[in-house]
Amino acid sequence: MQLTGQNYIAGVTSAEGAETFFSVNPRSKERDDLPYHNATAAEVDRAVEAAAAAFAEARNYSSTRIADFLDEIADQIEALGDDLLHSADRETGLGLPRLTGERARTTGQFRAFGAMLREGSYLRPIINSEAAGQPSIRQMQFPVGPVAIFAASNFPFAFAVAGGDTASALAAGCPAVVKAHPGHPATSEMFALAFKAAIAAQGFPAGAFSMLQGSGIDVGQWLVAHDGIEAVGFTGSLRGGRAIYDAAARRPRPIPVYAEMGSVNPVVITQAALAQRADEIADGLVASVTMGTGQFCTNPGLILLQDSPAAQHFIAAVSDKMSAAPAGVLLNETIARGLEGAVSQTIANPEINVLTGGEAIADSDYFCFSNTVMQTSASAIRADDRLQVEHFGPVTLFVVCEDADDLRATVDALEGNLTSTIHAEADELDDISDLLHQLREKAGRVIWNGFPTGVAVVHAMQHGGPYPATTAPGTTSVGMNAIYRFMRPIAFQNVPDALLPDALKDGNPLGIMRLVDDVYTDGAQ
Amino acid sequence: MQLTGQNYIAGVTSAEGAETFFSVNPRSKERDDLPYHNATAAEVDRAVEAAAAAFAEARNYSSTRIADFLDEIADQIEALGDDLLHSADRETGLGLPRLTGERARTTGQFRAFGAMLREGSYLRPIINSEAAGQPSIRQMQFPVGPVAIFAASNFPFAFAVAGGDTASALAAGCPAVVKAHPGHPATSEMFALAFKAAIAAQGFPAGAFSMLQGSGIDVGQWLVAHDGIEAVGFTGSLRGGRAIYDAAARRPRPIPVYAEMGSVNPVVITQAALAQRADEIADGLVASVTMGTGQFCTNPGLILLQDSPAAQHFIAAVSDKMSAAPAGVLLNETIARGLEGAVSQTIANPEINVLTGGEAIADSDYFCFSNTVMQTSASAIRADDRLQVEHFGPVTLFVVCEDADDLRATVDALEGNLTSTIHAEADELDDISDLLHQLREKAGRVIWNGFPTGVAVVHAMQHGGPYPATTAPGTTSVGMNAIYRFMRPIAFQNVPDALLPDALKDGNPLGIMRLVDDVYTDGAQ
Repeated sequence: MQLTGQNYIAGVTSAEGAETFFSVNPRSKERDDLPYHNATAAEVDRAVEAAAAAFAEARNYSSTRIADFLDEIADQIEALGDDLLHSADRETGLGLPRLTGERARTTGQFRAFGAMLREGSYLRPIINSEAAGQPSIRQMQFPVGPVAIFAASNFPFAFAVAGGDTASALAAGCPAVVKAHPGHPATSEMFALAFKAAIAAQGFPAGAFSMLQGSGIDVGQWLVAHDGIEAVGFTGSLRGGRAIYDAAARRPRPIPVYAEMGSVNPVVITQAALAQRADEIADGLVASVTMGTGQFCTNPGLILLQDSPAAQHFIAAVSDKMSAAPAGVLLNETIARGLEGAVSQTIANPEINVLTGGEAIADSDYFCFSNTVMQTSASAIRADDRLQVEHFGPVTLFVVCEDADDLRATVDALEGNLTSTIHAEADELDDISDLLHQLREKAGRVIWNGFPTGVAVVHAMQHGGPYPATTAPGTTSVGMNAIYRFMRPIAFQNVPDALLPDALKDGNPLGIMRLVDDVYTDGAQ
Repeated sequence: MQLTGQNYIAGVTSAEGAETFFSVNPRSKERDDLPYHNATAAEVDRAVEAAAAAFAEARNYSSTRIADFLDEIADQIEALGDDLLHSADRETGLGLPRLTGERARTTGQFRAFGAMLREGSYLRPIINSEAAGQPSIRQMQFPVGPVAIFAASNFPFAFAVAGGDTASALAAGCPAVVKAHPGHPATSEMFALAFKAAIAAQGFPAGAFSMLQGSGIDVGQWLVAHDGIEAVGFTGSLRGGRAIYDAAARRPRPIPVYAEMGSVNPVVITQAALAQRADEIADGLVASVTMGTGQFCTNPGLILLQDSPAAQHFIAAVSDKMSAAPAGVLLNETIARGLEGAVSQTIANPEINVLTGGEAIADSDYFCFSNTVMQTSASAIRADDRLQVEHFGPVTLFVVCEDADDLRATVDALEGNLTSTIHAEADELDDISDLLHQLREKAGRVIWNGFPTGVAVVHAMQHGGPYPATTAPGTTSVGMNAIYRFMRPIAFQNVPDALLPDALKDGNPLGIMRLVDDVYTDGAQ
């Protein structure tokens, strides 16, 4: 596949900027020859203007028409063939098995949104019919307009140019202007070609999708500040997400930022669970911490348990297994340096004991960091919020609590997370209920006897959580409800049936589920 | 009823602050004798800490138990009797008929939320059962925690201490810390007594409700900055709302601000509508602009029509009727001065013609402003965004467009609004569809052949809209869906049935509507 290194603005390649960067293979630290051009402010403008024009043209497209487009995108991604897998593998080091699965998830996301759109009830129609002294009021969800999306480094498919943010924005009916991640520019350009082909095949306006390259922060700042952008989706670091959030809040006309910024994903293991399943939990934990070289926002980074000989034995076993596991490939130099910095800062705290790892691997010919297990006390973590920082890589921190009260106090002191997990036994159910609800307050998803890595793309999924996990805990970036980030309700008062969208017409021609006079029904009004 | 002038912190009166202010009767400009004490930073702290403690105690209360509490609040408000009406009338000048209706709306809101909670489907349970390679995932909505609420001046009942923000926060299961509006402190204290009585009667934790008085900006700033607050509801001016929004965005841990900040509520009148119904529309428009002395966030402040002799005749008729109408009482001196300032700034634009009014009424013994009608051109309003400023009072601005294209271009240039309205005739439906969708993009509610004042408290209501109408266009501050501002989804993965909330249990013991494996059902899983 012939790549250009250019931006794709409404389907047209453009390389007006003088600044360039290169794709780097994390397995060899070697860079590719093709220069990728950072987008300029003028190119950002053009992309947003094309998105606005596309929205004016497409804002009344039917759900079915949008569903056809989403299916076409999935088909076009598959048509990229194995070139896509090899490109992503070369740019991220994630390996073909993982990437093959991630591609299926990515195309699956587009098709799942397509299926939801064809069913139609996602529009959430609510009707209150005319009554004594009250007008007829009918509301449903509409797209908000052009959306800016920031691709993540760690999922070159499922959270990147063609990831869940883009899929849900397009499914909502919003044009997407995507800032590609500089860690995988070649893969990003391939996706841009797939979107261009899908737009042509389905007769969508060209501005429905643009892809901008950028190795610094300028492109993102221009994009978020642009008055034509109505909402922002972001997956990445706390620092990056907060910068985007702050930029959006500073606008003359602020817009919502849906930033998913990672997490330490606390795991509580009860004494009974340790007594029954120590080996199984240790194996599962090590697999979860090292999977994808630990580069998941749901990586279990904080393990809470009560002190006991069994706990000490368990911690030693996990440490041994982590030590024995090979050091995986990290995505890029920025990730490697960031991890080194975060771990250095943590171990500078005298209350932290490093059980294994804790340092970069000297003279490595690939980007990596030693698998790391640390230990501290509950009082230490309560005394210093910085110990709750995410270490984005194969790193976990045990928090040894003196007793149940110490554990409960520490859970209360946790910051917001994407997930929280508890390992417990069935005969503890009565005792564990309060703790479960405490953990619930700290996360968007609570896992029982499992591990947080692995996020099912289903309707019930909640991939979000209180700050600093996200900037919008009421929303999700994975699963079908991700679409509502990019829609808003609009009500019609006494509007004639002929002018109403089909979803709101008296006869319910779409046959969808609606809340009519406070009763759910898929019949006519 | 014996009032104290104090703050109510978890049911306990407190007056630690040295700063005081007084209740003023806008009909006489006379102030009452009782000093009201601005809350101190320490009092704000105590209120938020009490709210956090209440949340820890009450976060698992059943929907039915919360519904009983909401009904009790409505009963206790009614038990305040006519003292409440007379107090509000004395403090706002809104008159007993309006206030009697507003009280019914206010108690009705609590009972409507109660009914929704008893029905139970508002929890939005979504279940994806265990499948090949997928865990069981179940999500529903949970309360976010303590909420700060800022009462509005113009609805002493329905958008104030016991208004829709408080009702929806309590319905969600969130404790509420309410900053009362200094325009009606006596009325606010009466509500605090009703909440205290309801809490006692239903055995709710005392911190579920606190009421803080404050005549300046300090109390609100302390409240929004407090780490224990999870979300903010605000109704008021753009300046006030933006200040709250900015303060929340600056927090180390930002939180959502649901600010409803007013609007100019554009009304488009077609030539056919004018030809058919000019007199009727003129009467309706004048009634809508002058109702409540124009002090509604849905006041029709911008009227767009195409130039014609009929249009000129219509504008003159509206101007005559406005001129003939008596100058109503404004809520307080701040409102009166703010209106004078806003109108002065607008008429400083040489493209503005004042047709009637435009100035304060000299030597008036009550707070008021002359009923005002202004006129400008479409090109003028497109050239200067400041002409889209809200004039909070009995003021409207006609925008005379040269032709249909000029009108359409002007609608495209509109900022966000709570509502947009179109007056048109049935035989125009084919022509009008595009215009209707254009107006849709600019508002949260689109009204056909009616007027925007009058907001039905029903499930389908959307009282929101793009900035500057609100800071959160995906949400509503009126109607049943207002509750979702103060809830967030939490998912449970593989959690045993016995530990799940009833709404998520296999057997669906609550018998509520759930989305189970992508199908709506009120049966068991």
